[in-house]
Amino acid sequence: MRERFHDELQMLLDRLNNLVSLVGRATRHGNAALLDADGDLAAAVIRGDETIARGQSDVDAVALDILARQQPVATDLRTVVACLRMSVELRRMGKLAMHIAEIARAHLPGPAVPEDLLPVVRAMADRAQQVLAGAARAIATRDDTAAAVLERADDDIDRLQEQLYHAVFAEPRSRAAEDIVDLALIGRYYERFADHAVALAREVAYLAGTRPLDAAPAGT
Amino acid sequence: MRERFHDELQMLLDRLNNLVSLVGRATRHGNAALLDADGDLAAAVIRGDETIARGQSDVDAVALDILARQQPVATDLRTVVACLRMSVELRRMGKLAMHIAEIARAHLPGPAVPEDLLPVVRAMADRAQQVLAGAARAIATRDDTAAAVLERADDDIDRLQEQLYHAVFAEPRSRAAEDIVDLALIGRYYERFADHAVALAREVAYLAGTRPLDAAPAGT
Repeated sequence: MRERFHDELQMLLDRLNNLVSLVGRATRHGNAALLDADGDLAAAVIRGDETIARGQSDVDAVALDILARQQPVATDLRTVVACLRMSVELRRMGKLAMHIAEIARAHLPGPAVPEDLLPVVRAMADRAQQVLAGAARAIATRDDTAAAVLERADDDIDRLQEQLYHAVFAEPRSRAAEDIVDLALIGRYYERFADHAVALAREVAYLAGTRPLDAAPAGT
Repeated sequence: MRERFHDELQMLLDRLNNLVSLVGRATRHGNAALLDADGDLAAAVIRGDETIARGQSDVDAVALDILARQQPVATDLRTVVACLRMSVELRRMGKLAMHIAEIARAHLPGPAVPEDLLPVVRAMADRAQQVLAGAARAIATRDDTAAAVLERADDDIDRLQEQLYHAVFAEPRSRAAEDIVDLALIGRYYERFADHAVALAREVAYLAGTRPLDAAPAGT
């Protein structure tokens, strides 16, 4: 019984890691689609959203099975509850990567990001990949201190978002309203993405028992 | 033991309903702050965000206590798991209401929404209140058919968002870039708000046992 339980918990973590990998790939490809105006990558990210949805269901199915049949307590219970919430965060990060890819696709064959704004958008895209990688490491190593580090990275992204908006405001007449709207949304998507990464790291701290569940949830 | 369990489940649902009420008030006040450029209401919504955070923690604390000590199964287990996920959705709806209030405040003493766009933004704000009310009713009555109804209302909001964006595109030169960005974000906030309401209704269907957990999560 105990051994079987251990196997199921391991399966749960494996499925969570699989979901993290899927979202990591969608993020990298979505970023490249946006920054390089790459239609093939954009299409791949949009198609891949269904795989991420299945990845979430796979996590949830094992978690619920454990709750229903093994009645875990203490750390094991926190692990299962944290996985049920992390799967939601990861699913939404996948959706945000898809939205980035959709904006890239809508502007093809041209770029969605005008050349003067590429540096700041590239910085946001890089940070997004970094915070997800940081959250993934925190999950893998059960590092309950990662949330503090990621919160600082999240502040960086908030500042980059402001920088992007200011740059958009600086020369408004030279841009189409459509482009301004898409740039506003790109900024918002990356900002949200980082918030979700912080939420993931906070779940790790909850799981490790050093923080109450979602006591101060990340942005929105 | 059994009676005590029943009391705890009831307390869980009471706290969830309390959170729904708090978010409902934030939504109404956030909408009024935006549409009437009302600074007092905007400030109240922004201040109230902390109360909503506590409301979420209150739900989660009871849910985790039940999981840890009562080891529920079947419908009871689904109820607790659904509450743990609904509290996250509601918290984020509260945050979106706060963002609406923040945009309203940033434009004071003037309005954030120019007069020609008031009708479409008002329609989005009304729909947001309706979908939350619909989700609240579904929770109260365990109506597992509400998700389908709310999905249609969600489609309406998506259409209104497109209408808003098209109106913004139609006369871009007459608007400041700052205003275009805020209008894009207002559209996005309401669209997300409705997605969360649909997610709530889907959790109700999960709770009622007629739908697997989050099998097709709402937007992002």
